[in-house]
Amino acid sequence: MDISIFKCISCDNEYNIQEIRYRCDCGELIEVLHDLETAIPNPQSWKKSLDVNMAEIAFSRYKPLLFPSLPDIALITLSEGDTPLYDVTHSFPQFNSLKLKHEGMNPTLSFKDRGMVSGVSWANHLGCENVICASTGDTSAAMAAYAGAAPNMKGIVLLPQGKISPEQLAQPIAFGALTVGIETDFDGCMKLVQKLTEKHNIYLLNSMNSVRIEGQKAIGIETLHQLNWKVPDWFVIPVGNAGNISALGKGLRELYDLGIIDKLPRLAGIQTEGASPLYES
Amino acid sequence: MDISIFKCISCDNEYNIQEIRYRCDCGELIEVLHDLETAIPNPQSWKKSLDVNMAEIAFSRYKPLLFPSLPDIALITLSEGDTPLYDVTHSFPQFNSLKLKHEGMNPTLSFKDRGMVSGVSWANHLGCENVICASTGDTSAAMAAYAGAAPNMKGIVLLPQGKISPEQLAQPIAFGALTVGIETDFDGCMKLVQKLTEKHNIYLLNSMNSVRIEGQKAIGIETLHQLNWKVPDWFVIPVGNAGNISALGKGLRELYDLGIIDKLPRLAGIQTEGASPLYES
Repeated sequence: MDISIFKCISCDNEYNIQEIRYRCDCGELIEVLHDLETAIPNPQSWKKSLDVNMAEIAFSRYKPLLFPSLPDIALITLSEGDTPLYDVTHSFPQFNSLKLKHEGMNPTLSFKDRGMVSGVSWANHLGCENVICASTGDTSAAMAAYAGAAPNMKGIVLLPQGKISPEQLAQPIAFGALTVGIETDFDGCMKLVQKLTEKHNIYLLNSMNSVRIEGQKAIGIETLHQLNWKVPDWFVIPVGNAGNISALGKGLRELYDLGIIDKLPRLAGIQTEGASPLYES
Repeated sequence: MDISIFKCISCDNEYNIQEIRYRCDCGELIEVLHDLETAIPNPQSWKKSLDVNMAEIAFSRYKPLLFPSLPDIALITLSEGDTPLYDVTHSFPQFNSLKLKHEGMNPTLSFKDRGMVSGVSWANHLGCENVICASTGDTSAAMAAYAGAAPNMKGIVLLPQGKISPEQLAQPIAFGALTVGIETDFDGCMKLVQKLTEKHNIYLLNSMNSVRIEGQKAIGIETLHQLNWKVPDWFVIPVGNAGNISALGKGLRELYDLGIIDKLPRLAGIQTEGASPLYES
């Protein structure tokens, strides 16, 4: 006896749920109905069991390892992390096992959000009301989003005038950052960022800020957690300016030093041939 | 005494973590180091505590209410759900409280993934090797992704030739669905889908398939869970062909019937003026 049935939304006809059926014989739509008293015999204890299963966000869960000095009250989060780890071995039979971590499933669609949790939260903890970066892409999107979520913070994005696509501009502007085109290239923007942060009370959030690395460590730690702490042979990761692979390595080494994993994987940094050295700003 | 410090990656200089600093006085980069023995005095018990906090995916967590008849072994998931609920009251002071549920943080970037978990999993349970939909957008992306993740299933997408943007085509093709342009409009594609599913062993996954509604119920249930079961006055939701608002209402009513929530919210279906009646296929 099935616990679910199809029932017509108009007449009283019922149908077996195991039947392939989209409409009632009378022509109307059908809906699925469940015998919930059988499925959930004790709703209150089921409700209680759910509370145990509602996870903390990834950053908070791993915070003792990521950034123990950050006070919880300073945390600025957009529920980043907990990205899926897809097993794609069936498409790549030349490997014993191949998994992909889908970091695009972060709030601004890139792994940069992982580093901005720690970067912007730390700026918030320090009382900085202005944060800045030079960026032509994901970094500015992430910084603008987290600055916009902080209670009292303005994001400032510097980028080369006329060299940025509307898609790249959309996120910083939508998240309320002061987005300024400068008649120079990326290096010129970066120099201006450094001058501004030396002279004014503006917090720099380009990747030379080491605090961002601490949040990015979560990618590797979370992956190991998803693998039930079974260490893979290799991590393969786009290398850019090596910020992300540095974060990965640091987090894995800390897990190893604590005895939470029993060996270290090898790391491979890869890059598309056409990738700009400025890819990861 | 802070548990974290900045340390130069080259010389041995150390700096207070509370200082705003990006480089060592020697000019080199710095990194953040933590006293992990203090932060995590017992790594093994910390590791154990993490296992409790690793959540099930949303569909599995709510499955007794969503679709109790679906055997766990048939489940096809891409780790959809558990989307953030953002409090944006500070931007809309005319409301006492306003929260946004970001359903774009699903694997194919729309709420359609919620319904395809149940739809494609049920097709998988029934042993259907071909699934089909007519769609000009998110539905085809979601169906193709879940069919592609099933062990033995081919997705088929019918769409009006020449009326679809490359962005809309990208996902079904990338996920391996047979993507066919037909010289007709959406209604013509839909008629063809119905004919094909009547004559051949192909499972229909347009929204007239009531099984999809069951997965979509998770949006409302998960929202209530995130609100700690405190029922808001209103849910406001794009209405389309009313499939999603039907799912929302069905899930909330089931929660109410079980006594898990103590009142029902009002539902408002909204639509942009330019929205096509075919928006939600």
